Amino acid sequence: MTTVIALGGNALIRPGERGTAAEQRANLRATCEALRPLLVDGELVVTHGNGPQVGNELVRQERAADEVPPLPLYLAVAQTQAEIGALIESELAAVAERPVVCVLTHVRVDEDDPAFRNPTKPVGPFYSEEQARRLEADRGWTVAHEAGRGWRRVVPSPKPLGIVELAAIQTLVAAGTIAVACGGGGIPVSSRNGHLTGLDAVIDKDRASSVLAVALGAKRLVIVTDVEAVSRGWGTSAQEELRELDVRAAEALLPELATGSMGPKLEAALAFARTTGQIALITSAASLAEALAGRAGTRITP
Amino acid sequence: MTTVIALGGNALIRPGERGTAAEQRANLRATCEALRPLLVDGELVVTHGNGPQVGNELVRQERAADEVPPLPLYLAVAQTQAEIGALIESELAAVAERPVVCVLTHVRVDEDDPAFRNPTKPVGPFYSEEQARRLEADRGWTVAHEAGRGWRRVVPSPKPLGIVELAAIQTLVAAGTIAVACGGGGIPVSSRNGHLTGLDAVIDKDRASSVLAVALGAKRLVIVTDVEAVSRGWGTSAQEELRELDVRAAEALLPELATGSMGPKLEAALAFARTTGQIALITSAASLAEALAGRAGTRITP
Repeated sequence: MTTVIALGGNALIRPGERGTAAEQRANLRATCEALRPLLVDGELVVTHGNGPQVGNELVRQERAADEVPPLPLYLAVAQTQAEIGALIESELAAVAERPVVCVLTHVRVDEDDPAFRNPTKPVGPFYSEEQARRLEADRGWTVAHEAGRGWRRVVPSPKPLGIVELAAIQTLVAAGTIAVACGGGGIPVSSRNGHLTGLDAVIDKDRASSVLAVALGAKRLVIVTDVEAVSRGWGTSAQEELRELDVRAAEALLPELATGSMGPKLEAALAFARTTGQIALITSAASLAEALAGRAGTRITP
Repeated sequence: MTTVIALGGNALIRPGERGTAAEQRANLRATCEALRPLLVDGELVVTHGNGPQVGNELVRQERAADEVPPLPLYLAVAQTQAEIGALIESELAAVAERPVVCVLTHVRVDEDDPAFRNPTKPVGPFYSEEQARRLEADRGWTVAHEAGRGWRRVVPSPKPLGIVELAAIQTLVAAGTIAVACGGGGIPVSSRNGHLTGLDAVIDKDRASSVLAVALGAKRLVIVTDVEAVSRGWGTSAQEELRELDVRAAEALLPELATGSMGPKLEAALAFARTTGQIALITSAASLAEALAGRAGTRITP
């Protein structure tokens, strides 16, 4: 059976860290150790986020902009797939004892997706209003103000529709390879005149992972995050970890999670469980073994 | 039959260009059109250089170093594989009408390679002597002075020994996919305590392409460069294009080419022809069709 596991948050960079290669390798070493129970249990595809890494890369692009041309956002996303993919390969191949290969992954989106008319996802460095207005004029960016922090570029976060490299990932997985794919949600593309064209947008990595898991016919989607499980009443005295949610219960919980980072994760897990009739799991890397045994984490069942 | 084609120079960035994504896409559009004759003729693996791109990326890393941690050189190489791989995929998939997939590629080197004791390959921006000495002290870099231009970091250029992702590339090629691999000569790695460890070095992309072509059992290695063919007496009144060189004639010519950029290309082509008994071809993208027909370029025969 194939498991798709989506690595986020602490798995790569921990609070207070700046994202050096050494920090990321050390974190990934611990994360990859935690993946051991999955390695004896069939095929594996690893996806991952890239928030802090693409943020760092966009700072680099801007600070050198007078000397070397900044790359479009979609290529910065590509760059982080390689950065993080190389780090995951180093650490996971040592644990897995089978080949680990990072596949540069493009994800199809629809240029008519309403997200393109309403960019909301902040990316890159903060600017003064004057700088922000100039970038808006010079580069066609959309900028937005974050209270107390300054101005920032905002980009669309469209819905992932399909994985361009799906067949290659399937081929590699069938050959016993662990594929690292869909990093940072994938490079957003659409077709224009028969050419794949990169778009300056970012795709939610859990949504993309869910689309990939469905397309691969995966038996399991595991979303690794910083908390052990999905909770009801988060941050209140009535906070309660939820061990299992069926599709209906998960749907009912979504409005309560709308403002936090757990909402999109539960939504992605739910989409996978509903579409495939298989189980999705949300948990932390440290709790993964227990969660696989049903004693930790949150299982989303069809 | 499988052809490995190594793209260099003008194929990606032309003289006077700064390396914007738009420039690279336009150049690659022309290059990929020129590859058509190879597309009707068996399997294809595309490799490529990354000189200007990794130079640009190293400038970005340095200019933002006070804000975000610079990545080690080996990860900057990885980043350029993704940048250029995404651009090649966009343009080549439109021409090829079959899947094109970029595989993040690591290349094994020996840490005892003499190149590590004598770093000679300049990379990244120029510095004042004072800055260079500080970087030497702070980061353990080796720096060297280039007459009239300033100080620069120099890194080892070790011999490529093997392609870590070889099996994956073989699997993808066998499935009818065009693989983009070994970008920038590959990410240099060695094994330390069972972990692949990235090394701050750069590998010559033609040498790495030759090693890949041999390992794949390729029937042809094509090295695409800016000139139409290998010449004897380059830049003299007696300059003569060489249409065909057997291994012995190629070896005899090497000393004459020692100071130019053609030397390593001919050496890589020669190594392929000698090891495999197959033919290598050195030519420009524009002359590729004629060269395949034996009317242009230089064929290196066993």
